[in-house]
Amino acid sequence: MEQSASPKHPIIAFMTDFGLGDGDVGVLKGVVLGIVPDAHAIDITHDVAPQHVASGAWILAASYRYFPPGTVYVCVVDPGVGSTRRPIAVHAGDWFFVGPDNGLFSYVLAEQPIHQAVVLSNPVYQLLQISSTFHGRDIFTPAAAHIARGIPLTELGPAIDPATLQRLNNGLPKWEGAHILAHVLHVDHFGNLITSITLSMVPHLFSSPLIELEFPDLKVTITERRRFFSENVDGVEDEQRPFIYGDSSGYVGVAIRNGSAARTLGVGYGAAVTLLIEEK
Amino acid sequence: MEQSASPKHPIIAFMTDFGLGDGDVGVLKGVVLGIVPDAHAIDITHDVAPQHVASGAWILAASYRYFPPGTVYVCVVDPGVGSTRRPIAVHAGDWFFVGPDNGLFSYVLAEQPIHQAVVLSNPVYQLLQISSTFHGRDIFTPAAAHIARGIPLTELGPAIDPATLQRLNNGLPKWEGAHILAHVLHVDHFGNLITSITLSMVPHLFSSPLIELEFPDLKVTITERRRFFSENVDGVEDEQRPFIYGDSSGYVGVAIRNGSAARTLGVGYGAAVTLLIEEK
Amino acid sequence: MEQSASPKHPIIAFMTDFGLGDGDVGVLKGVVLGIVPDAHAIDITHDVAPQHVASGAWILAASYRYFPPGTVYVCVVDPGVGSTRRPIAVHAGDWFFVGPDNGLFSYVLAEQPIHQAVVLSNPVYQLLQISSTFHGRDIFTPAAAHIARGIPLTELGPAIDPATLQRLNNGLPKWEGAHILAHVLHVDHFGNLITSITLSMVPHLFSSPLIELEFPDLKVTITERRRFFSENVDGVEDEQRPFIYGDSSGYVGVAIRNGSAARTLGVGYGAAVTLLIEEK
Repeated sequence: MEQSASPKHPIIAFMTDFGLGDGDVGVLKGVVLGIVPDAHAIDITHDVAPQHVASGAWILAASYRYFPPGTVYVCVVDPGVGSTRRPIAVHAGDWFFVGPDNGLFSYVLAEQPIHQAVVLSNPVYQLLQISSTFHGRDIFTPAAAHIARGIPLTELGPAIDPATLQRLNNGLPKWEGAHILAHVLHVDHFGNLITSITLSMVPHLFSSPLIELEFPDLKVTITERRRFFSENVDGVEDEQRPFIYGDSSGYVGVAIRNGSAARTLGVGYGAAVTLLIEEK
Repeated sequence: MEQSASPKHPIIAFMTDFGLGDGDVGVLKGVVLGIVPDAHAIDITHDVAPQHVASGAWILAASYRYFPPGTVYVCVVDPGVGSTRRPIAVHAGDWFFVGPDNGLFSYVLAEQPIHQAVVLSNPVYQLLQISSTFHGRDIFTPAAAHIARGIPLTELGPAIDPATLQRLNNGLPKWEGAHILAHVLHVDHFGNLITSITLSMVPHLFSSPLIELEFPDLKVTITERRRFFSENVDGVEDEQRPFIYGDSSGYVGVAIRNGSAARTLGVGYGAAVTLLIEEK
Repeated sequence: MEQSASPKHPIIAFMTDFGLGDGDVGVLKGVVLGIVPDAHAIDITHDVAPQHVASGAWILAASYRYFPPGTVYVCVVDPGVGSTRRPIAVHAGDWFFVGPDNGLFSYVLAEQPIHQAVVLSNPVYQLLQISSTFHGRDIFTPAAAHIARGIPLTELGPAIDPATLQRLNNGLPKWEGAHILAHVLHVDHFGNLITSITLSMVPHLFSSPLIELEFPDLKVTITERRRFFSENVDGVEDEQRPFIYGDSSGYVGVAIRNGSAARTLGVGYGAAVTLLIEEK
């Protein structure tokens, strides 16, 4: 695939763990607009749990497909900033991804064809002074802005073998008899628990006569399913009863209506999950 | 009134209870820019108290007039997502409002002429796959983007009678002798308490010889008025003393200088308020 | 210096203490786009500690240089709103600054040549109704938008002598023998402590044989230096050990890897700091 030509209003989308309390996020946009005055600088989120690479990887995975082709993502969850981890740009699918080579792009690399990957070493496309702690400002954002205005990736630094890019050991869910062994990938804003079980693994999610989702560490078993949050299957209104649903990100989730499943059940990132589903 | 022609830089303004910690808000903007590449995607807020429709309705009421004619609002505080509540678009005053028909547009409907309202049922203007829990992404935002690029409302689905649109029972304030019976509509970022008493109900707010604002449930009575937060009427500096002021939203408020009236008084959303004011 | 001509896509950058929970920040952008439809409305931050002018001044100082020439800043941390403090616009360096005359621009005024300063008194460039508590919406943002579209500052109100502009008594760090006496200027999102000691004061920060950073009120002394957060000088992994580093804002900082120095040490805004450094 050819690198997309630069569109009239290029899009640069940011995902970081910087929070919004300092001026750092604004600075990234100032740097972008100094290089590409007609860019859209869009926030995915800046509230990735600090230095939690796996959580950032998941949020990116749930988001990137909804942006137009040619969008350039700047992703910075970077506990290794200043060390030997490589600063990279990757052209995968219809998009460009810029950030540290630490696993943040694991889902993208697994899901999309990888056209090209480079190390960001050309100082021409960096700020004049490079700090040792804010590569988002000094290296990643300038690189992304130059990609957005049409500079070929190969100008930014030497090509690297996509096979050498870091990938998280995400512990893909696996079948064990009638059970799927999985874990909690993400806790969203409402306290819904998103598991690593994709909806495509369980096409019978709503038609199977029996389903049991278990948190083995807690000895909690959930058997109720709802198609939407306000559905009430048996007419009994128990707002604190957790149920299984199909999350809009494409994964099986657990929720409590008008409440937080994470808080009520005491379940967080990484918790083990098993799902028993009868296919008939 | 004719539907506004599509301006050169259409504005789509978002108000939701999604929070900023997930990628959802970024996804909405990705969807917009895929449909209208030169749009401005602006946030009103994404921190409406989760599923608190009345609070969202108030925030929209205090904001929408300040955006240019033709702005399209996407408003999602939607506990009934996936159920039978209607997804709607309304052309009211100089603006367009897209979201669930659950009362979120109550103030707008009361304050503006309603030119047209439709149900968003035409799949041509929705994403290809419709989730049961994220209509903000799959239905509301695509509809808003198509309105912003000039598609007539009637293309999006059948017209509905504006009289059938849901309206909150907002408990309008009422006079009872010399008293106004009202309640707290909103607690703002500084902890100021915004009451349901409009400034136009009390033109003598600052000139009346006597005023008493009471929280009957708390047996707290406030008699001090200030025109601005740092005003100090009697020269006694007591930072913890609550006072009555005219909020910039157009309602009577209660504040504490350099402090939170909500926290200090222990008052929140919905608390009863009475105001005694002598007109001479 | 001549006032910059209005660029094709003018930038208006916002810094306030409004928080993101109400609609106020959205309203500012609605006002901008009503006056300059092709503007970029960019957030620096809206989470300055409420009414903490010194903190806002520092965040602006660390950010403004990264925006393109011609950027107009709207800065509102304004405990004196409605009182006699002056609403001002200042043309300093390559940028324009709009907000209250209360010290918020102290660093800018110290660092940049001041070309012009005016009081914002011309009602033609304000909203029709001026509230006494929301000058960000009614005065500052309209003024900034008009500056962005090329209106000369002198149209907005009478010129004032730059020498009369309010400046914070920032307590600049000073040498006392081999010690620098300074204080904590800012606590960032990760809990890193940013001191008032600029990196240019201590060119030997990493080459000096001896360095001791002390919080005298706490009797804590820090002697370890790291060039980046994941550097580990002696191979001993003690994640809770604070170290000295050069912050990307241009100041000496104190951090703890994967932790919060502010929380671990119990240090906050304004705490006294001394630095002993041998120059060789």
